Amino acid sequence: MFLARITGSVVSTQKVEELVGQKLLIVEPLRVNEKDQSDLQPTGRSFITVDTVGAGKGEVVLCVQGSSARFTPGTKTLPIDCAIVGIVDSVTLKEKQIYEGGDV
Amino acid sequence: MFLARITGSVVSTQKVEELVGQKLLIVEPLRVNEKDQSDLQPTGRSFITVDTVGAGKGEVVLCVQGSSARFTPGTKTLPIDCAIVGIVDSVTLKEKQIYEGGDV
Amino acid sequence: MFLARITGSVVSTQKVEELVGQKLLIVEPLRVNEKDQSDLQPTGRSFITVDTVGAGKGEVVLCVQGSSARFTPGTKTLPIDCAIVGIVDSVTLKEKQIYEGGDV
Amino acid sequence: MFLARITGSVVSTQKVEELVGQKLLIVEPLRVNEKDQSDLQPTGRSFITVDTVGAGKGEVVLCVQGSSARFTPGTKTLPIDCAIVGIVDSVTLKEKQIYEGGDV
Amino acid sequence: MFLARITGSVVSTQKVEELVGQKLLIVEPLRVNEKDQSDLQPTGRSFITVDTVGAGKGEVVLCVQGSSARFTPGTKTLPIDCAIVGIVDSVTLKEKQIYEGGDV
Repeated sequence: MFLARITGSVVSTQKVEELVGQKLLIVEPLRVNEKDQSDLQPTGRSFITVDTVGAGKGEVVLCVQGSSARFTPGTKTLPIDCAIVGIVDSVTLKEKQIYEGGDV
Repeated sequence: MFLARITGSVVSTQKVEELVGQKLLIVEPLRVNEKDQSDLQPTGRSFITVDTVGAGKGEVVLCVQGSSARFTPGTKTLPIDCAIVGIVDSVTLKEKQIYEGGDV
Repeated sequence: MFLARITGSVVSTQKVEELVGQKLLIVEPLRVNEKDQSDLQPTGRSFITVDTVGAGKGEVVLCVQGSSARFTPGTKTLPIDCAIVGIVDSVTLKEKQIYEGGDV
Repeated sequence: MFLARITGSVVSTQKVEELVGQKLLIVEPLRVNEKDQSDLQPTGRSFITVDTVGAGKGEVVLCVQGSSARFTPGTKTLPIDCAIVGIVDSVTLKEKQIYEGGDV
Repeated sequence: MFLARITGSVVSTQKVEELVGQKLLIVEPLRVNEKDQSDLQPTGRSFITVDTVGAGKGEVVLCVQGSSARFTPGTKTLPIDCAIVGIVDSVTLKEKQIYEGGDV
């Protein structure tokens, strides 16, 4: 899985029936700062995901890719390859907390 | 999933039976402009996909990869690893609309 | 899926029983020429694939990756992650034909 | 599969029910030193994984990706794409031991 | 699938039950020499795989990735994402044999 920040959303009216009612969010994966490993940094990349936990814009979330994105109660039959499965409260790296919910 | 623009098509007469009648489209993935995040830019890469929503040349679409490409009514048994599952109306990033259907 | 040219073959006598009788071909993925998008160019990369359509050396083919490589009648139980599922007749990009079968 | 060192952890209270009670660990993939192949070096990348073997911070572990991360007794129905499936005792490359459990 | 040379091994005592008795080998993927396509060259990357054909150190083998690594009689229920499914006798590229078993 990977950590990402929710940065936007996609609207699609004409889509496969399975996706009707699903919120399509844009997330930007985050990486550990390579210099001093003191925080999480944006990567500039983006994925379109389906949210399963009621996450909101700006929040840091846990995303799962591939067939496993279909292993939540609400996504079992969806044609999706990425899902948000958790909202991140905190991230600890080498005994140091590098992220806490609410940071922007 | 990822956003892409439909740029072309592939014709193949001699193919596996499961693909007969399927429209093979070339899509070019789009990425968020890294400078100011004000629009979507072409990446120069390309994927061959099967269209499930009647999308047309030049349109921006939502694509799904991997086994999930087989999770639409029309693609369940197809040997495909990428499918178009939605036509994109608009994309909003950090409260700003960076794409609206019809843009070229 | 991706487009590739068949460039070679692999011989393996000692292999899992499921692969006995399968032709193992080397394919080189092709990409759209980034300069003027006028043709397909070799990428220098290579994949080992199983052919399901009787393709020959030098031909441009359509390849599928991942679990979907097992979704053809002849590959359902094979331990393979890439299969050739079509021989390409032509490729059209932005209203211009950039490849026609027989080109080398 | 790939080798990685456990470097941190993620706390998520609001998550899909399937992940409740699962320990979410951050691992950093290791690569063979390209110069002289004498040791394993950090790559700077990171994955979020679920631990299935009781591994601890700092340990070098074996990680599996994709749908196979669900093929352990404790992860069969989890929406995860990466799992720790072994703690590494030693790594031997070209007849030379380049890692032994306990090295930091 | 990809070609690789077996370069080492991993010992893990504490692992998931499904992996007990499985030989964990390190393989280094090979690529076609980009200059003149006359031989196979090491890539510096490495994967941990399970051997299903009795391959030995130094041999060039055929590896399969993803869920298909579980499609051999001995790996059906294993949490693995890469398996060795054949020992390579020879590789021919553009009518020229660029590898023959026994080469080191």
